[in-house]
Amino acid sequence: MPSIGIVSPQTMHFAEPLQLQSGASLRDYMLMYETYGTLNEDKSNAVLVCHALNASHHVAGYYADNPKNVGWWDNMVGPGKPLDTDKFFVIGINNLGSCFGSTGPMHINPETGKQYGAAFPVVTVEDWVAAQARLADQLGIQQFAAVMGGSLGGMQALAWSIMYPDRLRHCLVIASTPKLSAQNIAFNDVARTAILTDPDYHGGDFYEHSAVPKNGLKVARMIGHITYLSDDDMAEKFGRKLRDIASSGGDYKFGFGIDFEIESYLRYQGDKFAEYFDANTYLLITKALDYFDPARKFDGDLTKTLAATRAKFFLASFTTDWRFSPERSREIVQALLANRREVTYAEIDAPHGHDAFLLEDARYMNMVRAYYEQVWKETNKEQAA
Amino acid sequence: MPSIGIVSPQTMHFAEPLQLQSGASLRDYMLMYETYGTLNEDKSNAVLVCHALNASHHVAGYYADNPKNVGWWDNMVGPGKPLDTDKFFVIGINNLGSCFGSTGPMHINPETGKQYGAAFPVVTVEDWVAAQARLADQLGIQQFAAVMGGSLGGMQALAWSIMYPDRLRHCLVIASTPKLSAQNIAFNDVARTAILTDPDYHGGDFYEHSAVPKNGLKVARMIGHITYLSDDDMAEKFGRKLRDIASSGGDYKFGFGIDFEIESYLRYQGDKFAEYFDANTYLLITKALDYFDPARKFDGDLTKTLAATRAKFFLASFTTDWRFSPERSREIVQALLANRREVTYAEIDAPHGHDAFLLEDARYMNMVRAYYEQVWKETNKEQAA
Repeated sequence: MPSIGIVSPQTMHFAEPLQLQSGASLRDYMLMYETYGTLNEDKSNAVLVCHALNASHHVAGYYADNPKNVGWWDNMVGPGKPLDTDKFFVIGINNLGSCFGSTGPMHINPETGKQYGAAFPVVTVEDWVAAQARLADQLGIQQFAAVMGGSLGGMQALAWSIMYPDRLRHCLVIASTPKLSAQNIAFNDVARTAILTDPDYHGGDFYEHSAVPKNGLKVARMIGHITYLSDDDMAEKFGRKLRDIASSGGDYKFGFGIDFEIESYLRYQGDKFAEYFDANTYLLITKALDYFDPARKFDGDLTKTLAATRAKFFLASFTTDWRFSPERSREIVQALLANRREVTYAEIDAPHGHDAFLLEDARYMNMVRAYYEQVWKETNKEQAA
Repeated sequence: MPSIGIVSPQTMHFAEPLQLQSGASLRDYMLMYETYGTLNEDKSNAVLVCHALNASHHVAGYYADNPKNVGWWDNMVGPGKPLDTDKFFVIGINNLGSCFGSTGPMHINPETGKQYGAAFPVVTVEDWVAAQARLADQLGIQQFAAVMGGSLGGMQALAWSIMYPDRLRHCLVIASTPKLSAQNIAFNDVARTAILTDPDYHGGDFYEHSAVPKNGLKVARMIGHITYLSDDDMAEKFGRKLRDIASSGGDYKFGFGIDFEIESYLRYQGDKFAEYFDANTYLLITKALDYFDPARKFDGDLTKTLAATRAKFFLASFTTDWRFSPERSREIVQALLANRREVTYAEIDAPHGHDAFLLEDARYMNMVRAYYEQVWKETNKEQAA
């Protein structure tokens, strides 16, 4: 499949303060985004793609100066791909608090002239969606053909459907959940504790100490990574295979270093992540995950929560995803059906755990493709009407 | 149920060096243990109880100077309890490398006159069992009525049945596994990484720096703790309940501190653990867990591995245990049955995850009680014969 090719990020500055759910506000801010495909005349073919924990606005294509930096959902978005950029105008947007371009903790706080650090306000899924809506305003997009996301991105899509029911015709929520479980929160809090107790964290103001809490970030990422993979997938890929068999003579090393392939893989992933990810961003994003719970205002009643929605829905979950299991998607499906919403739901039998939403899987991709073909037909009908 | 009452630990010194699986050896060492009940004349009523990660020789009863320090399996072991000390002579033994009395990394290395620290050799389940066998020799116990353990303790019981087939008549393996999965190892390695990267760890020689890697230990314990509880149990006990509702007005705190009860619980458990547990011991014990794989010598064939066994077996697993799931116990059961061993297997429908093996559950306790009644009958028959 051809990729969309060379892409370039754009930025948009917002001078109007953004009131946040916490009560704090951002005086002004910048959002980084990318677009693929062409916005049609009546601006009815726009699709917003929301990102998950460690991703960004760079959804598809690659950069001229770095062809290896391919978008995180390049298998999903592009010409002829399930979300077909020959038909749709797709927007990838980076969220506030990120370390990939939009205003975040490493940027200058206009109030102090210093980097935000610990002073960057806690942002929620709803805050992100409000900021995204302003970008849509500026682009003149009154209504999206669809808003789509996986995992934390799916939460944003769901929040769109509740907060701005008339601004999206379709809502695609992949491998997501209406709220984190106690176990989900527990894993996030261990990751946070690893960062917060790293002496190089300096209470969030590590920039001015020219320090990076790499050890904390590494441990945080290792924990996260375990929860993205399925037990079976890990067993198949790594099992109890030993690392450096030649040098160890096939035996254990009887030390506290790496014996098994899985250890080598996880520590490598942790080190790599600690090189490029920001510790404050990690804290912010895990709190946004923990806080997401739109039914909270309705005493936990998800059916009442989703009564406000007007979109049609597509949901998908993956059988071996133990982070956000199919059961969590089914809760959303049930609540939507109770509201007589149109819902397409795919429970994909896939071995790759939570990560499956990012991976190639013919049944999954075909389901999304078929759904967007339907969206496209409707879009054109409405255009003709 | 009456507890066994006041108990006292004892120590035994071994002057003969212990050759370890790693090739290293311990020149001399000390084991700490407790006994409950009375050894009969022909020494046929002894039961050895092996401990898991953070436990010790203190299996039952309490100490005169600290009545709150009750043994970790006091609900299982005592007069009239499932493992009845009115009938059996029960031995609790602390393993080498522990921080609870037996020779460990915080003790003086006779080679250097300094605390072992990083120089304490890596020990395996098999090394522990070899050391336990020497204690049995000294006590004149040629054959145990039973060797019993849960989790890592179950691995020791299983290793006994393979290494010393004629020295135990019964082998009770609870909530255990023939080897760790890649996911199990992964969790252990994240915990180890948290300790190893804590600046207070000082490469294992933190004693001489008067430092304690508490942050690393805390994170390690938090991770471990999540894997001991079931998702459902956490949901029921904690769910998304907020902490300090009064002071927060029932809203989120919008910071990186504690919002949810589950966070408060885990951080508290982590802090408490870091106060009393030793970081080197944690590393040693997680490596012993990772290394345990008796079938390794038999190309992974567990049936061949267990062909050497002569004991009768009791196994129990718990439906919500996702650390060592029932599937892992069934692997052992199948391999034993393939060897035509006598096996009793109980798969207990319990909500409490891996921790269930330590908790009161009528069906579980009754199964163990019934099994020991059978062991008792056999013991007396053999005595009479």
